[in-house]
Amino acid sequence: MNLILFEQNELSPEAVLRLTGERAAHVREVIRAQTGARLRVGQVGGQIGFGEVQSVTSSHVQLRVVLSEQPQPLLPTDLFLALPRPQMLKRILEHVSAIGVRRIWLVGSHRVEKSYFSSPILKEQSLRELLLRGLEQSRGTSLPEVHVISRFNDGLESFVNGADRETIRLLAAPSASAELGEIGIKLGRETPIALAIGPEGGFVRTEEEAFAVANFQPFSLGERILRVESAVTFALGQLQMLRSLNSARQGGGEA
Amino acid sequence: MNLILFEQNELSPEAVLRLTGERAAHVREVIRAQTGARLRVGQVGGQIGFGEVQSVTSSHVQLRVVLSEQPQPLLPTDLFLALPRPQMLKRILEHVSAIGVRRIWLVGSHRVEKSYFSSPILKEQSLRELLLRGLEQSRGTSLPEVHVISRFNDGLESFVNGADRETIRLLAAPSASAELGEIGIKLGRETPIALAIGPEGGFVRTEEEAFAVANFQPFSLGERILRVESAVTFALGQLQMLRSLNSARQGGGEA
Repeated sequence: MNLILFEQNELSPEAVLRLTGERAAHVREVIRAQTGARLRVGQVGGQIGFGEVQSVTSSHVQLRVVLSEQPQPLLPTDLFLALPRPQMLKRILEHVSAIGVRRIWLVGSHRVEKSYFSSPILKEQSLRELLLRGLEQSRGTSLPEVHVISRFNDGLESFVNGADRETIRLLAAPSASAELGEIGIKLGRETPIALAIGPEGGFVRTEEEAFAVANFQPFSLGERILRVESAVTFALGQLQMLRSLNSARQGGGEA
Repeated sequence: MNLILFEQNELSPEAVLRLTGERAAHVREVIRAQTGARLRVGQVGGQIGFGEVQSVTSSHVQLRVVLSEQPQPLLPTDLFLALPRPQMLKRILEHVSAIGVRRIWLVGSHRVEKSYFSSPILKEQSLRELLLRGLEQSRGTSLPEVHVISRFNDGLESFVNGADRETIRLLAAPSASAELGEIGIKLGRETPIALAIGPEGGFVRTEEEAFAVANFQPFSLGERILRVESAVTFALGQLQMLRSLNSARQGGGEA
C-alpha cells in the first residue's frame, strides 16, 4: 500500500481522518507509523497529499490531512476484455487499475463460460475494492469505469457508442502476423486507444469479423500464447512504449 | 495447457508416450480427447509435434508421437530480479517462462526479506515445474536457466561474468525520469538484453550505484508504482515492442 485512500465523507471539517479496520492495521503493523509520522494519503476521485499521524491505538489511527497535488490522470486507454475466470479477473482488475486504464469492458464471448458472469467479484462493491487496491499500489485516486456486459454484440455496441471516432482500436489476435511495432501506428501521450483481448483460445471468427467492422486493427503479441493476465499487462506495456516513443521523438525534434 | 510436455526418457523406441497423473487427467477431463484425436506435444528441450491418441483409460492416456518442428527459440533476454515474495514469484516464473526469457537471476537486496530464500518454491524440482507450466501455456520446450543468489553483490557479479559485453543492460528505477522509449536505445530481434527489476520499494542507493558501475542504464516505467509482478510483464512487453519496431524499420527500409 503506497497510498492510504479515503472517501470524501470520511474527512471531518477539520481535515481529520480516523482510520479503523484494515487501513488502521496496515498503518500499525506494516508501516509501523508513530505519532508525528507523515503518510501519503489520497481522496478517492480527488487529490493526494499527506496525513500526519495524531494518534495510534489498538482500534484506530487518526491523521490530520493536507491534500496538495493532483494525482496522475487516467490514461486515455480503454480495455475491452473477454471476461476471464474470476480468480484471474481479480488480479487483472488490480493491475489495470494500477496502470491507469480509464475504462474497462468485461464482455461475453463464445469461449467465455457463462457462469463467470454470476461471480460475486462482479458485484459493484467487490469491483470497487479491487480497483482501489490497484490505486493504493500506484498512488492514483481515479477509479476506472467498469462495464459488465454478458452478450458480445451488446458489449461491442456499447463500446462503439461510447468511443471517440479518432480512438485507435487494436485487437490482440493470435491469427495476426504483425506485432504492434510492425503495423505502423503512431500514438501520442493523449491519443485515445481501445485495446481488445480475447479469452483463452481467442475470439471466434464471427467475433473477429465484428471487431473488423468496428475498425479494430488486429496485431500479434508474438508467437507465444500468453495467459490473458500476462497478455493484458504485456500489451499495455507495449502501448505505453509507443506513447513515450513518439513523445520522445517530438521532444527531440526528430523526423 | 496448449502443449503436452514430456521428457525424452518417457518416449518408447516406438515413439509411444504413456501419460498418467495430471497430464492424463487433463487429456481426459479438459481436452476430452477420444481415440484418434491429435494433440500438440513437445519434448522438454527438444522439438514439438503431435501425439495421436491410441487409448484413454481411467489410469492412463497413450499417444503415438511425431515430432516435426523446432519451437520458438528463447529470447536473448535475461531477467535480474530482486527475489519477490514466494506467492508472487510463482506467478512471475510462469509468466516469464511463457514469454521466453532465457535466464533468470533471483537475487537478494536490502529490501528483500531473507526468509524468502528458504521458500520451498526455490527447490530445483519446484522451479522446474513452474517453468514447465509457462512452457505448456506458450508452446515452448526450452527451459530458462535460473540462478538463485542470496547476496546482492554475488548476484550482480555472477550476472556480469556470464553476460556478453554487448548486452544492453537496463534497470527499472523509480528515481529515473525517462521512460524506455525516451532513452534512445535500439534493439534488434537478436540484441542481448538484461533487465533488472527491484523489490517493492526499489533497490537502495548503494545497489543502484553497483548497477551503474556494471553499465546498467536506469529507466522509468512511468509515474505509477507497479507491483513487481506487473512491472516484469509490462517491461518485457516494452522490450518486445522495441525489438519488433526496429525489425519493422529494417524491413521497411526506413531511416
